[in-house]
Parts: sequence; structure tokens; C-alpha cells
Amino acid sequence: MQKLVLIRHGESFWNKENRFTGWEDVDLSEEGCQQAHRAGQLLRKHGFTFDIGFTSVLKRSIKTMHFVLEELDQLWIPVQKSWRLNERFYGALQGLNKDEITAKYGEEQVHKWRRDPHEHPPAITTDDPRFPGHYLRYNDLTYRELPLTENLSETMTRALPFWHEVIVPAMRQNQKVIIAAHGNSLRALVQYIDNLRDEEVSQLDIPTAQPWVYELDDRLDKIRHYYLD
Amino acid sequence: MQKLVLIRHGESFWNKENRFTGWEDVDLSEEGCQQAHRAGQLLRKHGFTFDIGFTSVLKRSIKTMHFVLEELDQLWIPVQKSWRLNERFYGALQGLNKDEITAKYGEEQVHKWRRDPHEHPPAITTDDPRFPGHYLRYNDLTYRELPLTENLSETMTRALPFWHEVIVPAMRQNQKVIIAAHGNSLRALVQYIDNLRDEEVSQLDIPTAQPWVYELDDRLDKIRHYYLD
Repeated sequence: MQKLVLIRHGESFWNKENRFTGWEDVDLSEEGCQQAHRAGQLLRKHGFTFDIGFTSVLKRSIKTMHFVLEELDQLWIPVQKSWRLNERFYGALQGLNKDEITAKYGEEQVHKWRRDPHEHPPAITTDDPRFPGHYLRYNDLTYRELPLTENLSETMTRALPFWHEVIVPAMRQNQKVIIAAHGNSLRALVQYIDNLRDEEVSQLDIPTAQPWVYELDDRLDKIRHYYLD
Repeated sequence: MQKLVLIRHGESFWNKENRFTGWEDVDLSEEGCQQAHRAGQLLRKHGFTFDIGFTSVLKRSIKTMHFVLEELDQLWIPVQKSWRLNERFYGALQGLNKDEITAKYGEEQVHKWRRDPHEHPPAITTDDPRFPGHYLRYNDLTYRELPLTENLSETMTRALPFWHEVIVPAMRQNQKVIIAAHGNSLRALVQYIDNLRDEEVSQLDIPTAQPWVYELDDRLDKIRHYYLD
């Protein structure tokens, strides 16, 4: 039996301001930092240790991982960062206030953008300052991989190769894995591990900075999962 | 022309208490954290960016790297940690107060232990709680590699394979490298890069948290070096 821990980053400044974040590299709020520390303390209390960590290339997840590992006294483990674990790319909605967007486009449309796995938010263009092609950290991506918008289903499509090619091989070598990532990239992994239908995953809410533990059998099929508290 | 940046970790609690540290995993003091942030700000002011970072498996260097990268807004770059960049293993002196040791063994002997590249501090035994074989993070080391004591020359011998097999290949691919490490593991690298004699390196003092920049030519031979300020 193997355990896998997923953790969604702590509160960011834009979570607090109720803005769409996506790939914008917003920092953790003071409360978000404390949430991450508390998550680490909780894992320590329950005797968790890890061999390797995976996170996105966005600082709110990287810092969440750092604070968790600091509390575990395991800052020394390897941590691998990948854009494939980034939050869903929210297109032209990134940076905008969710209430204002709702006032403009209506409740129903916003709900679709947020929850319908096949609905795209409005796309940006490549001359938009939010286009990831402008940033050093995405230099290794092909144009095909650089998003202009993403629906939930596309987020899953680009996250899963990292699961299959990097995370699963680590677990096959009996490495104890922790993943610090984002609401939607974690949803993608959970949908896959739990074999959820689109309707089920669209109702799934992953709370911030609360360790979600999977117990997996030798085939890495799920035995059960639970939140630590 | 390529630039390589070396940085010694900020002040630790034991630097402050004047104790031999070695592989003991002592945290940065508040002042040490601030030194690391200031080093990052300095690098940012001078326009430095990096493609990859290397550090030890000791938290004072890992956190120094984290704070430097945070100031550069480059937390997303890969950071590889290796025991080969650890501080020199100080044997039975680890944890002891330098003044007390001097009172007991005399100025001359302590100076030899600290500066003579071929002088060993007293060794520990494998049942000593300070023996690295007791710690998870050194599980991948052979018994031959687990130190009981180290002279400066042995620190160099175990640090250099990481230089040749990991750091140099990264630079050959034109990756811009930053290394956050320790007084003696950095001395080892500097002795090699600068081709210093034992007498020269024993007089070399690397100040904490002050970025040391090497300019290297296409063969990775030194053109010049300087401290940033």
C-alpha cells in the first residue's frame, strides 16, 4: 500500500481579491503562508515523510511546497517543477474580478466557464501581456503548448502526461510523493485517479492547503482517500 | 563569456553561537534570512537571471537559495540538491563551541584543524548520533562515502565530482548557474576554478551571502571574478 498526498496552495492575494488567477504568478497572502505551514505541521503530526515533491512553476504552489517541507524538516528532498501542474489557463478572464465578470456576463455564463469541462473562457491573443510565450519560464514549450485559453478538459489533457511519465514512475519505485498544485490541475489528477465523470468532477471542490491523502494499492489503484485534520 | 555565481549561505544560529557546524542541519538566523534576501536584491539590481541552481542538502543553503530566487522572481527554475555540496564534515567537533575547543586544545591545533588541508578533526564513530548514516537524506550514500571526519582536501575530493559531472555539463549547455553552498564546499570549487595551491586556499575567506561572480571563457577557464556590491 502506498500513500500519495495532494495539496492545493494556500490563499493567494488574488483569491482574497476574488480575481481570476490562472497562470498569473500571484504570491501567497500572509494567511496563505500560514495555511501552508499548518498543513506541514499536520502532516508531521501524522508521521508523513516524502521522497520527492512535484509542483507547478507558479510561486504560490512552490512556496506552499517549501513551507510544508520546512515543517516536515524535509527541505532536502528533490522537488520537481512543471508547467503541466500549473493552474488552468483562464484566458482573457485572468486578472479580472469575478463579481464584475458575473455582473457583465451573467451568473450562468460564469458558472459554465468555471465548471463546464468543455467551455472555453474568452481567448487572449499572442500580443497580450498575459501570453505565456512572453515569459522565460515557458521557453521550452512549443507554440502548440502555449495556451490562449483552456477549458477544464484541456487542463487535464496537458497535466496527465506529467502524471504518467514522471509521477507514476516515481511511485513505481516506491517513492513517497507529495504534489503541491492548483484547484484545477489537482482536479485533473483526482478525476483520473478516481475515474470520475465530467459531471462529478465539476462538482468537486478542493479546499486550500488541506492535505488530501490517497491510499493506493500495488497497481496504484485507489483503496481510499481522506482529508487530514 | 559565461557568468557563474557562488553564494555562501547567510548566518546560521550556530555561526552566531560560534559553534562548529559541519553537516549539522542548523537553520538560518533571522539576520541570515535577511542577508539572503539582500543578496537576491543585489543580483536583481545587477540584472542577473539564472537557468538552474545547485545547493547542498542542508537547510541553511537551501533557504538561502530560496530567498535569493524569490527576490529574483525566479523560484520556478530547477534547483538540484546534493550532499556533495555540503559543508565540510567536522567530525567530533560538530556542535562544540570554538572558544571552548581552543581553550582545551590550544590555538595552534584549532588553526590546523580549520586551515590545514590535510589535518583531520577527531573522528566520530558510527554509533554517534551525528553519524550521517542515521539520516534518511544520506540513504543513497555508500558506507565509504559516509564521513566520520573530513579534512579540507577530502571535502574537495567529494565535491568535485558534482562540479565535473553535473555543474560543468549544465554550463556547457549555456545554462546560467547559481550555486548556494558552504564556506568549505565553495572553497573547494574556488580552489579548482582558480587553480590555487593549498597555502592559498587556506587563506581564502568567503563572506556569507555575498554573491561571488565568475566570468568564464568558452573553455570555462576563468577570465576574472569579483564580489557584487
